[in-house]
Amino acid sequence: MKIRYGGDYNPEQWPKEVWEEDHRLFDAAHIDTLTVGVFTWALTQPGPDVYDFSTLDAIIERAAAAGRRICLATGTGAHPAWLAKAHPEVTRTDFEGRRHRYGQRHNSCPSSPVFRRMSAGIARRMAARYAGHEAIVAWHVGNEYGGACYCDLCAAAFREWLRERYSTLEALNAAWYTRFWSHTFTDWDEIEPPSALTEHWRGPDHTAFQGITLDYLRFMSDAMLTNFRDEKAAIRSADPVTPVTTNFMGLYRPIDYHRWAADLDFVSWDNYPPDDRSAARMALAHDLMRGIKDGQPFWLMEQTPSVTACRDVNPLKRPGVMRLWSWQAVAHGADAVLFFQMRAGRGASEKYHGAVIGHAGRADTRVFREVTALGSELHSLGPVTLGARTPARVALLFDWDSWWALEISDGPSRLVRYLDVVTAYHRALWQLGADVDVIPVTAALDRYDVVVAPALHMIKDGLADRLAGVARRGGTVVTTFLSGRVDEDDNAFPADVPGPLSPLLGIRVDEWDAREATYVNPVTMDGSTFESRLLFELVIAQGAEVVGTYGADFYAGTAAVTRNTFGSGHAWYVGAGLAQDGVDHVVRTVLTRHGLLGPCADL
Amino acid sequence: MKIRYGGDYNPEQWPKEVWEEDHRLFDAAHIDTLTVGVFTWALTQPGPDVYDFSTLDAIIERAAAAGRRICLATGTGAHPAWLAKAHPEVTRTDFEGRRHRYGQRHNSCPSSPVFRRMSAGIARRMAARYAGHEAIVAWHVGNEYGGACYCDLCAAAFREWLRERYSTLEALNAAWYTRFWSHTFTDWDEIEPPSALTEHWRGPDHTAFQGITLDYLRFMSDAMLTNFRDEKAAIRSADPVTPVTTNFMGLYRPIDYHRWAADLDFVSWDNYPPDDRSAARMALAHDLMRGIKDGQPFWLMEQTPSVTACRDVNPLKRPGVMRLWSWQAVAHGADAVLFFQMRAGRGASEKYHGAVIGHAGRADTRVFREVTALGSELHSLGPVTLGARTPARVALLFDWDSWWALEISDGPSRLVRYLDVVTAYHRALWQLGADVDVIPVTAALDRYDVVVAPALHMIKDGLADRLAGVARRGGTVVTTFLSGRVDEDDNAFPADVPGPLSPLLGIRVDEWDAREATYVNPVTMDGSTFESRLLFELVIAQGAEVVGTYGADFYAGTAAVTRNTFGSGHAWYVGAGLAQDGVDHVVRTVLTRHGLLGPCADL
Amino acid sequence: MKIRYGGDYNPEQWPKEVWEEDHRLFDAAHIDTLTVGVFTWALTQPGPDVYDFSTLDAIIERAAAAGRRICLATGTGAHPAWLAKAHPEVTRTDFEGRRHRYGQRHNSCPSSPVFRRMSAGIARRMAARYAGHEAIVAWHVGNEYGGACYCDLCAAAFREWLRERYSTLEALNAAWYTRFWSHTFTDWDEIEPPSALTEHWRGPDHTAFQGITLDYLRFMSDAMLTNFRDEKAAIRSADPVTPVTTNFMGLYRPIDYHRWAADLDFVSWDNYPPDDRSAARMALAHDLMRGIKDGQPFWLMEQTPSVTACRDVNPLKRPGVMRLWSWQAVAHGADAVLFFQMRAGRGASEKYHGAVIGHAGRADTRVFREVTALGSELHSLGPVTLGARTPARVALLFDWDSWWALEISDGPSRLVRYLDVVTAYHRALWQLGADVDVIPVTAALDRYDVVVAPALHMIKDGLADRLAGVARRGGTVVTTFLSGRVDEDDNAFPADVPGPLSPLLGIRVDEWDAREATYVNPVTMDGSTFESRLLFELVIAQGAEVVGTYGADFYAGTAAVTRNTFGSGHAWYVGAGLAQDGVDHVVRTVLTRHGLLGPCADL
Ligand SMILES: [Zn+2]
Ligand SMILES: [Zn+2]
Ligand SMILES: [Zn+2]
Repeated sequence: MKIRYGGDYNPEQWPKEVWEEDHRLFDAAHIDTLTVGVFTWALTQPGPDVYDFSTLDAIIERAAAAGRRICLATGTGAHPAWLAKAHPEVTRTDFEGRRHRYGQRHNSCPSSPVFRRMSAGIARRMAARYAGHEAIVAWHVGNEYGGACYCDLCAAAFREWLRERYSTLEALNAAWYTRFWSHTFTDWDEIEPPSALTEHWRGPDHTAFQGITLDYLRFMSDAMLTNFRDEKAAIRSADPVTPVTTNFMGLYRPIDYHRWAADLDFVSWDNYPPDDRSAARMALAHDLMRGIKDGQPFWLMEQTPSVTACRDVNPLKRPGVMRLWSWQAVAHGADAVLFFQMRAGRGASEKYHGAVIGHAGRADTRVFREVTALGSELHSLGPVTLGARTPARVALLFDWDSWWALEISDGPSRLVRYLDVVTAYHRALWQLGADVDVIPVTAALDRYDVVVAPALHMIKDGLADRLAGVARRGGTVVTTFLSGRVDEDDNAFPADVPGPLSPLLGIRVDEWDAREATYVNPVTMDGSTFESRLLFELVIAQGAEVVGTYGADFYAGTAAVTRNTFGSGHAWYVGAGLAQDGVDHVVRTVLTRHGLLGPCADL
Repeated sequence: MKIRYGGDYNPEQWPKEVWEEDHRLFDAAHIDTLTVGVFTWALTQPGPDVYDFSTLDAIIERAAAAGRRICLATGTGAHPAWLAKAHPEVTRTDFEGRRHRYGQRHNSCPSSPVFRRMSAGIARRMAARYAGHEAIVAWHVGNEYGGACYCDLCAAAFREWLRERYSTLEALNAAWYTRFWSHTFTDWDEIEPPSALTEHWRGPDHTAFQGITLDYLRFMSDAMLTNFRDEKAAIRSADPVTPVTTNFMGLYRPIDYHRWAADLDFVSWDNYPPDDRSAARMALAHDLMRGIKDGQPFWLMEQTPSVTACRDVNPLKRPGVMRLWSWQAVAHGADAVLFFQMRAGRGASEKYHGAVIGHAGRADTRVFREVTALGSELHSLGPVTLGARTPARVALLFDWDSWWALEISDGPSRLVRYLDVVTAYHRALWQLGADVDVIPVTAALDRYDVVVAPALHMIKDGLADRLAGVARRGGTVVTTFLSGRVDEDDNAFPADVPGPLSPLLGIRVDEWDAREATYVNPVTMDGSTFESRLLFELVIAQGAEVVGTYGADFYAGTAAVTRNTFGSGHAWYVGAGLAQDGVDHVVRTVLTRHGLLGPCADL
Repeated sequence: MKIRYGGDYNPEQWPKEVWEEDHRLFDAAHIDTLTVGVFTWALTQPGPDVYDFSTLDAIIERAAAAGRRICLATGTGAHPAWLAKAHPEVTRTDFEGRRHRYGQRHNSCPSSPVFRRMSAGIARRMAARYAGHEAIVAWHVGNEYGGACYCDLCAAAFREWLRERYSTLEALNAAWYTRFWSHTFTDWDEIEPPSALTEHWRGPDHTAFQGITLDYLRFMSDAMLTNFRDEKAAIRSADPVTPVTTNFMGLYRPIDYHRWAADLDFVSWDNYPPDDRSAARMALAHDLMRGIKDGQPFWLMEQTPSVTACRDVNPLKRPGVMRLWSWQAVAHGADAVLFFQMRAGRGASEKYHGAVIGHAGRADTRVFREVTALGSELHSLGPVTLGARTPARVALLFDWDSWWALEISDGPSRLVRYLDVVTAYHRALWQLGADVDVIPVTAALDRYDVVVAPALHMIKDGLADRLAGVARRGGTVVTTFLSGRVDEDDNAFPADVPGPLSPLLGIRVDEWDAREATYVNPVTMDGSTFESRLLFELVIAQGAEVVGTYGADFYAGTAAVTRNTFGSGHAWYVGAGLAQDGVDHVVRTVLTRHGLLGPCADL
């Protein structure tokens, strides 16, 4: 047992003589695991009633013969052209209301009965054929679930989902606040998916009715989860034991991965940071992925060994960077380090995507040498880190509902982005060396001394009480501007801001100011001054101690940052969009109180 | 009698126990007028043949009981979901040719017979029910008319409108200059609304045929006026006396408010300036609104007490700003100062829009205190300013046709914006303290000493003669580049530029140069030098005196600004895109001649 | 015989009394040639079975009476409104999948049988009527062919085109690399045009399948060529001798003019440079146009005498500029200098486009004086330059397939634009005074000493051998980054980069780095240092001499520019995005070797 090493392998794209060369090079590079079949639906099912597993058989047998293990995909990340031709409704209708025709990938309507039946069908046949094969160590369902569909089938499914959620139109009208703008629904069939043709203007974040849009986001995440479940159930009909996963995408907004947690046997994800200044962002993503299944190790399912292809500008990973980032993944809990892709395909949109083996098939490239060196290191490491857990005493709350609600809101500022706020607080924790779990708002908080909840816009499920509990028993809670604003239906609390968090925080907020990114209001804390930008809440202490004050505008001298003593603990409120050094200051103060500064915090 | 004070009030969104609290706070803040029912169609008519006025009755009775007056809306600013379901053609088809489904507001096709019948129907029932109620002081029809529809019903209505305007296809083909690009129409049914699917490229301002697009703008403004007339007639069937209005939007391009003037009993408008540097822009908008009905006082129907919600960044009104801007409105002719909104709604896209009373219902907020203080001031003022008129001797011409024609033109420059030019000249007049009426080009000019006509692109209805008359009797006319270019059909005059204005101005223009915004050509006038940008007409004096000359390019030393003696008066032509100080210089010179500089002109 | 002088003349737009004035002014300006009828389809065929040539007859007779010659257009650059009404399928469906309705110009589906029949029909009638008329010196088919259609008729025609090209689906699947993303086509009818509704994201350059998109570009260029052929055949049925052309647009991506070369009797093109810093760009365009028919002189079919109208900002041509650019055209091979337009139309989207005669009809304008002066010069010149050829020893390869393949590629950089690279090398040749032919990759290379092939992404048709032949016999080949990457199907060569060019160049490239435009890597050549940007290939010499090395990043000191000795000649590879001075250095070195520096190279 060791950390799995390898990646996506698509030899169905090239002749068999090349396969031999592939495996020779895999041996040289200590490759032990191959993800196979991710886009093979048209290959294994070339027509409605035709199946042909011969190529896939050969791929698997050749890999098994070399002693390699296989993560076997069901191949449903893209549907075949014949399926779209025979059943045009399997394609998606986009946000603009346009029915797509055959093309691209991730192109299936999640609500289409035909797609659901056919995708489960091919998964069932795959499982029936390969279940129990010694080489197969995991099932990989679909691929990078995401996007959205707005077709009439989805509209109907959405209405069913709403009936389930609300039972009555009265409840739905209340939740969506439809007395506003004459929106009262008197029949379920009056409800349309929120799109450019109905509630939206300018794009997916600009909606007239946040409630509808928020529920559609939840519904679409659930609809795709249903697709995953369809296939997993089909697999389980033949293979009751091999773990099943799908590849997540880290900090990906459209899918609420927390709602998927229970259905995956383990988490895996694809790491494509924008550039080589992305270490902090990757750290957050790794921690989020590890937190999905309560700290259980995950797989790094994809990363490029060198370059991406889909960006406007695709910079090259410098020497050592691939190695460094691979170890970062392991340090954050990865039990597998896999590449996309093992050999470069010759055509279409990923022909210039980096690969372990390039078009020339050489072993004497820098990239191949670095892959081989890392393979050797992982081989030497052996099983040491497998299954490891991190006993963190710090938690950072991450919440798709708050992400969505904050970013589809009209006002106070479109410039305030959920990930920016979360990343700043996580970055402070990371740079100060604290072990941190990134967890859902439904998680138990008992084990944590410090709970950081940036931009916790929505409060639901008794979260306010659980946060209060952290402070009551001596812990520290940190939250920020735009927290405690709305309930689960995205309706503002009929109370002082920050709503149910007010008692814990000992403050209230009557007013807030938003400004362009160029405007700076300095905030003074503990004798030092830090810049703040974008959003400035005018915090009124109601028992809390004022820690930071604004330096400019008519609210100069008033509170920007407060700390409330609550029970034996503390609750911080950061009302201003502090720059990173201000966030660092707050987080350092908190960690210091709990003795949680890491050993390298001052390097 | 005093200036009305209050605003939009939507208690149908919250429970009745809160209403009591609302009125308690209204009393405290000297609130005397409430706009009620703006989006109540789904409430009052929950189905095709179902009416329920109970909630509205209660709202009105509660307000009346408190002695407050009501501006009662017909509630047709958004249609109910059931209507869109039963009659999909009541929704609009957008510029991209997409039929919308139910959602948003301002969502009704103005040409839909169903919408016209139903909207008039609910207005008729409202009037029948509430006519004669002592509390009701005004009717508010629809809400912020605007946008456009491109559906087949509108296409048919457009063709009818064209038949009315042109009688024959020969006349239409001549007006639209259809010999160009093989566009001759041989049947009325060949004519399509000008959209992204027909004449346009890049957007609504980029058209192959200015004539079609210009007429569609006129038609759409008229179509919505028809909607207003439908409802007003319905109201008048039961209530022959209470004044009827709708809320305009100031400097709003899609609707030619001058064409609506005769149909409104008084003008009201919503003032949402982009930021706190908007004083000059608001001054222009107030003057324009006052000028619609020949100087008659208007209502400030909406303004936010604190923040907006719909912008990317929604800054807070600083202390004193709301008061200052309210008094500015009064000084420009407002007989009412109203807010949107009295209490903040909890959900949907305006939940973060500012309100007199916030979600927490507090009276001890800065905003509520400022609202109360202003209420007290207005109370003390009493009836002094009501019905006041401004005896201005300066007129500024404002013309939607010129606005449209200039901005849908191909060439000479998309960077020249009508409002920018008009604002610069109005700002000069405003800063120099001149009383100014902003009036339509059809207005009588007899009472004015100075008539300023910036970017008067289109000359129609004998305007050239009337302007000549101003100068002839000793007045001064000021006009600029891109004036006198086209006739009522947007066809260039087959004559020297500036067409019919040439005799008055004593110049001609053979050439013009357009440049990027970064390029500056200095213009020297009276020994001082001023920057000019964007557009540079090469003015050839034909009797006029050269007042300003260009300082750069191959036309350095030639005329940029001229003054012609005509009769006993003067006619100025400003051929260059002068910066504000240059415009100020011209305007100051003119005002000085007539002794119209205000007392604070040199502060 | 002399250089033809005149331009587009549309007197059908104004009354006949103006025609007399027109011809009086034409005489004054030495105008001898008029392009007539470009948008007259609705005039000559006002209904399906109605024809009326009376106006066109009169125009031609009046011009002939004045001794002027006529370039007679078939008038099919825009179809009539009645045609779109009767046959909605003649309009185009756009990239977004939207069927357009009547409007604009260039609005016909090239695959529509109705359009093909009707356009050929009107051309046939025109030819039958005017063939043999002494005044007619050329036929002008359609107008500025371009754009694209994505309708079902085009889809069907595309499938036919594909059957012709590939014969079998197996061959097509291989060419398009459809094993990728499960794209295998099992029926021709499964293939859809690549659009926003199928393979594309973000726009026309972002495709999931380069092969499909590339073939659609080829198909659409061919489909429009078929339209041209339809009309030319119709003309030839009545007029076997008069030369036939259409107006090209220079550096225009959508149409592969090289594929059209054989069908035109002579090339003509419209020159609308963006601004007065466009001399080098125009030089390239002229050379490209001249190269289409192997150096045969071309017509400058359109240029503005003063301003354009369609741009955001339309600057004025300064005094002398029109003359200078006209002579530039002649120097590059133009046998005609024609304007758009002779007299300004009064309405629609070109009313502000510059004209020889403005709306006022004056002869005493600067523009008219300059036109007259040039007319006089051309008259004095006489036949001297007619039919002249340039005996260039330098060739620059220009290839639409490489242009398309490079710019629809995912990775390595969207910032690398084909024209930018080509222009830099052409500019160097131009500034250094070398005569240069811009030729297709299929051209014979025997007559050239130097062949420059910037960004020669695709290698096909034995080109690698022909380039090797140039070097073998002592010539010099220069190529750059992103050359030799793909085969005719846009599939990467399964070999070292730069594929079949590797032996000639004596290098290989394993890695490349792309960076934002702000990043600079200095390249040192021959003791001087030059900036490079955007793309940095890590060149590994395999026999070539290293001429330039990178100065920064982990590959500092490695090869950026190489020169290989091959046979008696040289082959250069420029692996970095050199700034203009670096390109100049390389080109100067090469030209010097061959004694091809022009006499003004060092001015
Ligand atoms: Zn769907
Ligand atoms: Zn309509
Ligand atoms: Zn077509």
